[in-house]
Amino acid sequence: MIGRFQPFHNGHLVLVRQILKECNEVLIVVGSAQSNYTFANPFTAGERILMTRMALEKGGLDVSKIFIIPLIDEEDNARWFSLLLSMLPPFDVLYSGNNLVFALASPHKEVRTPRFVRKKQYNGSYIRKRILRGEGWSNLVSDAVFDFICEIDGINRVRLLAKHENVESSKSIELQKGYYRKW
Amino acid sequence: MIGRFQPFHNGHLVLVRQILKECNEVLIVVGSAQSNYTFANPFTAGERILMTRMALEKGGLDVSKIFIIPLIDEEDNARWFSLLLSMLPPFDVLYSGNNLVFALASPHKEVRTPRFVRKKQYNGSYIRKRILRGEGWSNLVSDAVFDFICEIDGINRVRLLAKHENVESSKSIELQKGYYRKW
Amino acid sequence: MIGRFQPFHNGHLVLVRQILKECNEVLIVVGSAQSNYTFANPFTAGERILMTRMALEKGGLDVSKIFIIPLIDEEDNARWFSLLLSMLPPFDVLYSGNNLVFALASPHKEVRTPRFVRKKQYNGSYIRKRILRGEGWSNLVSDAVFDFICEIDGINRVRLLAKHENVESSKSIELQKGYYRKW
Amino acid sequence: MIGRFQPFHNGHLVLVRQILKECNEVLIVVGSAQSNYTFANPFTAGERILMTRMALEKGGLDVSKIFIIPLIDEEDNARWFSLLLSMLPPFDVLYSGNNLVFALASPHKEVRTPRFVRKKQYNGSYIRKRILRGEGWSNLVSDAVFDFICEIDGINRVRLLAKHENVESSKSIELQKGYYRKW
Amino acid sequence: MIGRFQPFHNGHLVLVRQILKECNEVLIVVGSAQSNYTFANPFTAGERILMTRMALEKGGLDVSKIFIIPLIDEEDNARWFSLLLSMLPPFDVLYSGNNLVFALASPHKEVRTPRFVRKKQYNGSYIRKRILRGEGWSNLVSDAVFDFICEIDGINRVRLLAKHENVESSKSIELQKGYYRKW
Amino acid sequence: MIGRFQPFHNGHLVLVRQILKECNEVLIVVGSAQSNYTFANPFTAGERILMTRMALEKGGLDVSKIFIIPLIDEEDNARWFSLLLSMLPPFDVLYSGNNLVFALASPHKEVRTPRFVRKKQYNGSYIRKRILRGEGWSNLVSDAVFDFICEIDGINRVRLLAKHENVESSKSIELQKGYYRKW
Repeated sequence: MIGRFQPFHNGHLVLVRQILKECNEVLIVVGSAQSNYTFANPFTAGERILMTRMALEKGGLDVSKIFIIPLIDEEDNARWFSLLLSMLPPFDVLYSGNNLVFALASPHKEVRTPRFVRKKQYNGSYIRKRILRGEGWSNLVSDAVFDFICEIDGINRVRLLAKHENVESSKSIELQKGYYRKW
Repeated sequence: MIGRFQPFHNGHLVLVRQILKECNEVLIVVGSAQSNYTFANPFTAGERILMTRMALEKGGLDVSKIFIIPLIDEEDNARWFSLLLSMLPPFDVLYSGNNLVFALASPHKEVRTPRFVRKKQYNGSYIRKRILRGEGWSNLVSDAVFDFICEIDGINRVRLLAKHENVESSKSIELQKGYYRKW
Repeated sequence: MIGRFQPFHNGHLVLVRQILKECNEVLIVVGSAQSNYTFANPFTAGERILMTRMALEKGGLDVSKIFIIPLIDEEDNARWFSLLLSMLPPFDVLYSGNNLVFALASPHKEVRTPRFVRKKQYNGSYIRKRILRGEGWSNLVSDAVFDFICEIDGINRVRLLAKHENVESSKSIELQKGYYRKW
Repeated sequence: MIGRFQPFHNGHLVLVRQILKECNEVLIVVGSAQSNYTFANPFTAGERILMTRMALEKGGLDVSKIFIIPLIDEEDNARWFSLLLSMLPPFDVLYSGNNLVFALASPHKEVRTPRFVRKKQYNGSYIRKRILRGEGWSNLVSDAVFDFICEIDGINRVRLLAKHENVESSKSIELQKGYYRKW
Repeated sequence: MIGRFQPFHNGHLVLVRQILKECNEVLIVVGSAQSNYTFANPFTAGERILMTRMALEKGGLDVSKIFIIPLIDEEDNARWFSLLLSMLPPFDVLYSGNNLVFALASPHKEVRTPRFVRKKQYNGSYIRKRILRGEGWSNLVSDAVFDFICEIDGINRVRLLAKHENVESSKSIELQKGYYRKW
Repeated sequence: MIGRFQPFHNGHLVLVRQILKECNEVLIVVGSAQSNYTFANPFTAGERILMTRMALEKGGLDVSKIFIIPLIDEEDNARWFSLLLSMLPPFDVLYSGNNLVFALASPHKEVRTPRFVRKKQYNGSYIRKRILRGEGWSNLVSDAVFDFICEIDGINRVRLLAKHENVESSKSIELQKGYYRKW
C-alpha cells in the first residue's frame, strides 16, 4: 500500500485494516520521501513514519505484521516498479486505486482496488487545506497523529509553507504541483 | 535534429527527408529520454526509438544514413550542448527552429532553421490531444507508428495518463508542463 | 545573505551595506547555481558571481570582507541548511526575510530580518519584466551590472527566453515557477 | 543503530537487545540501501529489511518497539547526519563504535559506543567470506536469516558475485571497496 | 547485446554476425555511456556509437537490422534490467556471457551465452594495453575503427590517460576499476 | 587555477602570485567541493574557501583581484569543461600542469603550464601524510592555514579519517583513490 501520508489519516487506517483481513502482512510505503517543508509535502519522511506507526498502534493494529518503508521519487515511470522491488521485501499483492500504479504494476503483480471510505474528507490535500484555514480536522486523523503534529508545531508549518508558496486558491496549487504524482 | 517524438509524426519525417537532401547523414536525438508514462511524454525512449526507425523505413528512407540516439534532460542549460557533444558522433550542422537551441548551440556549430510543414497538425501535443478526444490522427503519423501505438495499447495509455493528471483543458497542461522545454 | 541575483540589483547592494555595518564579513550565496537560460534564471552562476562582484566594487564596498559563493538547489528542504554548512565558511548570523529560510535555519543559527528598501522595484522578477517589455531598468541596478548585461547581450537573452517559455502574463509565470523557491 | 546488514547477524541481534535495555525504542537504519548484487552488498534493501525483521522476531524481541528504515548513501559526509534527521523519526541517542559516525554525529546527538560481542565472527565481511568458501556460517546468524538466504538462493548469489568481481584474496577486496564506508 | 566498446573490436563484430543468424534484428547497447577520458573508458559514447556503426558497415553487415543505443550506468543492480526495458525497443533474447547479467536478466528474458572467439585478444582491456605500449593492434579491430581512432588522435589520448592515472601495471588497474562492472 | 586545496599550501600561494604577474584577476576553483571527511579530502568546501582566503590575505595578496569558487565533480569528463564555463565568470587562460585538464580545456581556451616550486613538499597528499605521522608541516602552509586547521581540530580529523579508512601505506591509498582525479 502506497501513499505520501501528508498526514496519515483515518482513510489510510481503514485501508490497512481492510488489507490485514485479506493478507498476513502489510507493507506501507511512504512515497516522495525526499520531499518536505512544501505545502503539498509539509512533513519529513521520518515524521511521517512516526505518525503512521503511532496511528496504527492507537488504532489497535498489530504492528508486528506491518512494515513502514520510505521511498524516494523516480522520474522514469517505466522504472518505478523496479524501485519498489529493490527497496521492499518480496510481496504478492499491491493495493491501489490509482490508474497509473495499475498500469505500471499490473504486468508484474496482482493489483487490487481498495474500497475507499469518505474519500473527499479522508484526503491529505483536503486536510492540509482545513489546517491552513483554521477549520477543524482532528476527527479526520488519529488522536496520536493530531497530537504529534501539534507537538512539532505542524499547524504553523503548514501555514508558513502556504504563505511562502502563495497558496491562495487551493485548487490551483493542486493542479500545479500534485497533478502527476503517482499517489 | 532533436525532438521528443511523442509520437514521431509526418512532420518529423518531412524534416529528415529535407536534411538528407543537404547532408550525408542525420543524427536523430530522442530528447527527454528519461520521461515516460506522463501525458506530455507517454512513450518510453525505447518505444520512441522503435517507432522512429519504423517510420523511416516505411517512408522509404535509407536508415544506413541515420542514427537514432536517446538523450536525457539536463537542467543546466549552459551545459546542455556539451551533453550533445559527449553522447553524439561528431556532427557539423544542427537543424532546429527553436530559439533556445539556437542560443545555446550557435556559438559552437552552424544552426539551420528547417522549413516546417503543416506545423499545427504535425505537432506532438496536437496529436496527443486528438488521441485523448477520440478524434482521428492516423493521417498525421506513419502507418507503422499508428500500428505500433495500437499494438502496445498506446491509446488507452494516453487517456489513462490524461485522466491521472487531470488534463481537462489541453491548453493549461501545455502551459504548465511543456513551456520551458528546449523542444 | 542568500539570493538568486537574477540580476544583482540595488536592493541587494543596500542589504550588503547594512550587514557590513553589523558584521565583520559577509557571505553572499548565489542560489540555484545550476539554473540558467530560463526566464526566471537567465544568467549563469558565473555571470552572477561576476556582476555581484562588480556591483560591490562600483558601490565602493570593501570586497576583501566579502565572499561570493554559488550554491546548487536541494529538493529535500530539511537538508538544505546542511548544504549551507558544508559549502560555506563558518558563519554566525543569517540575514533573510524569507519565512521558510527562517523555519529551516533558526534552530541552528541566529536569523535576522533585514530592512528592505523599495521592495517592489528592487526585485529581480520586476526587473526581468521591465527588460522584457523594453521599459527602463538601468536605475535599479549598478552601472557595472547594466553594462555587463548589455555586453553579454543579456537583454535579447531575457526576451528570447520569455518567448521560448510563452511568458505572456508575467504574473502567471511567477506563480508557476517561482512560488516555492526559498528566495 | 546503523549497519548495512549484509547479512543481519547475531552481533546485530545482541546490539538491539542491549539498546532495548537502555531505550524505549530502536531505529535500525539499513545503510547503502541503493547497493545490491555486489560482493560487499549482495542483498537488496528489501531483502535486508525482511531478514532483519525475521531475526528480531525469531530472537523474541518486541518488534512493536523497533523501526527498520532503509537509507541511501551520501557522498558529502558533512551532510550525512542531516539525511538521518530527514529520514528518521526524532531520536535521542546514536549507538555506534565507528569513529567517523562519532565525528559527524556527536556535535548534534549523544553517541554511545556499544559493547560488541565476538567482533571477528559476528562480522558481515567474515560471514560473506565463509559463504564464498563453503565454510559453515549458520551459527553466526539467526535461523530465520539462514533459511531466508537459502530460499532466495543467496549462497549462489554471493559466489557468483565474488567470481564476477574477481574476489580472490578477500583482504584486498575489503581494502578496495569497504575502507571508507561509514559502517 | 551489451558492451562498453572501448573500442569496438573484431570479437564484437563476430558476435553481431552470430546473433544476426539467430535473430531478425540486433540491439547493440553502448554501456557506461557517461564515462570517457579515463584509461578504462577513453572514448565518449558518441565516438563509440560512430566506430561501432562504421565497423558494422565495413564488415558488410546490414545496418538496417541493427540499433546502437547508449546506456548510462546504474548503481542499483536490482534496477539495472528495468533501465534496459525503458531505454530499448522491446526485445526477446539477451546475449551475454556475463554471470551477473545472467542473474539480473534471466528472471525476465531468455539469456543466451554467445560463443566467444579469441577471447584474450579480442578484448578491450588487452587492446588498450597494446595501444599504451605501442604494440600492434590494427588486426584486432576493423580498419574503419583503426582509422577513426587515429583521426581523433585516440592513441595519444589513451597514453595521456594512462599516464594521468598512473597505470603502470595494467593488471592492478583492472582489479581496481573494472572488476565489478557488468561488462 | 584549479585544485582541491586539501589543504591550501605555499605552493598554491606561489602559483597565485605567479599568475597575478601575468593576469589582472585570478579565479581559484576549489574542486571536489562535495567531498569531505575522507583522508584524501578531509576539509569541507567551506573550510577550504576560508583557508584559501586567509592564506591569500596573510600572504599580502590583493584579494579584490581574486575569486574563490567551489566546484563539484563531474564523472563525464567530456562535459567537465562546460561545468567550468557555467559556474565561473568568463576567463581567458587556464593554468594547469595536468595533462587531462590540458586535453579537455585546450580546444577551448589557452592553457598555460605554471612553474611549480618544491613540488614534492608543496603537495597536499604529502602534507596530509605528515599530519598523520605527527611530522612537522607548519612551514609548508601559511600561518593562517595552520592556525585555522588547529582551531577546527583538523589534525585529529585527519588521523581519525586515516584510521577509519585503514590508511597504512600512504602509497596504496593514493593509488586507490586519487589516481584518476583531474587535480
